[in-house]
Amino acid sequence: MERVFNFAAGPAAMPEEALAIAQKELLCYGSTGMSVMEMSHRSKAYQAIFDKTEGLVRDLMHIPEDYSVMFLQGGATGQFAAVAMNLIGKTGKADYVDSGNFAHGAMVEAKKYGEVKCVASTEASNYTSIPTLNKADFTPDASYFYITTNNTIFGTRYSELPDTGDVPLVADMSSNILSEVYDVKKFGAIIAGAQKNIGPAGFAIVIADRKLFGHALPCTPSVLDWKIMDKKGSMLNTPPTYAIYMAGLCLEWLKNQGGVEAIEQVNIEKAKVLYDVIDNSDFYRGAADPASRSRMNVTFFSPSAELDAKFVAEATASGLANLKGHRLVNGMRASIYNSMPMAGVKALAEFMKKFEMENK
Amino acid sequence: MERVFNFAAGPAAMPEEALAIAQKELLCYGSTGMSVMEMSHRSKAYQAIFDKTEGLVRDLMHIPEDYSVMFLQGGATGQFAAVAMNLIGKTGKADYVDSGNFAHGAMVEAKKYGEVKCVASTEASNYTSIPTLNKADFTPDASYFYITTNNTIFGTRYSELPDTGDVPLVADMSSNILSEVYDVKKFGAIIAGAQKNIGPAGFAIVIADRKLFGHALPCTPSVLDWKIMDKKGSMLNTPPTYAIYMAGLCLEWLKNQGGVEAIEQVNIEKAKVLYDVIDNSDFYRGAADPASRSRMNVTFFSPSAELDAKFVAEATASGLANLKGHRLVNGMRASIYNSMPMAGVKALAEFMKKFEMENK
Repeated sequence: MERVFNFAAGPAAMPEEALAIAQKELLCYGSTGMSVMEMSHRSKAYQAIFDKTEGLVRDLMHIPEDYSVMFLQGGATGQFAAVAMNLIGKTGKADYVDSGNFAHGAMVEAKKYGEVKCVASTEASNYTSIPTLNKADFTPDASYFYITTNNTIFGTRYSELPDTGDVPLVADMSSNILSEVYDVKKFGAIIAGAQKNIGPAGFAIVIADRKLFGHALPCTPSVLDWKIMDKKGSMLNTPPTYAIYMAGLCLEWLKNQGGVEAIEQVNIEKAKVLYDVIDNSDFYRGAADPASRSRMNVTFFSPSAELDAKFVAEATASGLANLKGHRLVNGMRASIYNSMPMAGVKALAEFMKKFEMENK
Repeated sequence: MERVFNFAAGPAAMPEEALAIAQKELLCYGSTGMSVMEMSHRSKAYQAIFDKTEGLVRDLMHIPEDYSVMFLQGGATGQFAAVAMNLIGKTGKADYVDSGNFAHGAMVEAKKYGEVKCVASTEASNYTSIPTLNKADFTPDASYFYITTNNTIFGTRYSELPDTGDVPLVADMSSNILSEVYDVKKFGAIIAGAQKNIGPAGFAIVIADRKLFGHALPCTPSVLDWKIMDKKGSMLNTPPTYAIYMAGLCLEWLKNQGGVEAIEQVNIEKAKVLYDVIDNSDFYRGAADPASRSRMNVTFFSPSAELDAKFVAEATASGLANLKGHRLVNGMRASIYNSMPMAGVKALAEFMKKFEMENK
């Protein structure tokens, strides 16, 4: 069976080069005589793998030394609780921008732990755009201000970060981390589920300014307590060792592509190829407001639900997999994370043009 | 490089047959055209993998239909909090038996969430035996009664389960789940980190009587809320998809060995081989009280710390890896979970005899 172009939103396509290395090493890693899966997380061989992965994250994102980088279980959804449990205790208050399903979920989860204000929302328009923010609505003494930089389901992205003054900005970057350059110093904390732009599912990366530590609520489970986990190097308990190894292979691949600076340009080009097909057609229609368009998740419709279904079926048969839109939007969604090569994007663009010709 | 016999306590050795299948399928699973790591957790192909793994757990442990089986992130340590957060709310009280480091940690974590009583402890003797239980000490209206069936670090095991009457028995079975037959109906809930007898690190199995649901504390993070996770089939959020797939391969291997009933007999034999060497020698000394001995973790000493270090170094050089005891016990520890073949145990027994001869 040949490998397909996989446009899944996450878990998502991974670099074939990384998978090939994993395959080669699966039964025996280096001179250890065992699989990475079988290694004690306390062994020198495994610690080296872990340190390499952390080093790549730090290097690729230019993370300052006084920021912690953690690999924690429970995914971004676990961190929805953890963000609040670790940070809201400072003043008891936090601001949230409701820009999509996961932003909304993070806000609802945070309400368990303090006073949460929804500063702006585009829920009423089914999240087709990033909300317009008005500084007058911000809570001056919020413990943090929370955004979701890219909204996977709706295909939207902040083109500009909000200026939150002295209130730390916290971002869920699950679906666009490492795909474009961000200045980490502008954030108090960044969380990201691994299964889109980092590696396989099974952990979240948490990047956090250690100055914010020390306000964890008494009910915080130890595995979600950032201060404890930072002190323990993410190893209070056994980390998801293999997923972290795989992430290391993927990040090494990214470094070989020229890092985030280089892949950002490729990602801009890839997104443009698809949006150009949409914009140059009166057959396709983009789901997201053009000013809010994501570079990672391109959401669009054909003229009817029937044609959408036909599109997805025929694309699948042509080796273009997982193009069905999320049920909250319908239509089509092409997730084109770092690992999706330009060849896959061009194949999809060609398919879109062909499908339009045949079904106009 | 040849594969070694890996006596690590967890993450631990896995069946070579399972690893070989994973290697073959790594870049392309069946006719999907992608790695299992790249599959959407919402896809039919992945759901089939997930369901197969859950079915194997249910089948191998004869789990009643009205018990939930969940695969949750955060490991057993995450479940130390989750057990209390989900269950203690009923009466606000719980009983714990302090039989080792992880039992102690679970108890300390639970104290965040309610009134926790230490019913018995062997901490004073450095946990060389399972504590003697006195029913008069049990809290009659405890929400649950917590034990650790096998203590990985100290090499001890309950040879008999406590009779807790109407109080649900909750067990951390991280290091002996699936290694011996347990009647699941005797437990209100069972938790187990995957990385010893199930598969790779990255999740915990939670088996819980649904009758106990409905008492989660308001501060429970959604990813640790058993009722929510049960309702969502462990997929409120993205599960650790690849680790669950690997567990399925390992459990299929176990089924092919004849299941838990058959492997229990092999495990009894394997442990006997090592304890016989210890007991028939005045060179080696077992660390655990004979009545409390574990079948999974065999802890022992040579006559001196110097000889212990020499033993570990020479064993490693002979392809017998990870025999160093935990720093809380020192000496040696041979973890011989299901995946450790009798050949590995016999090789270690031969090495022990040879080392004794050479160093007496």
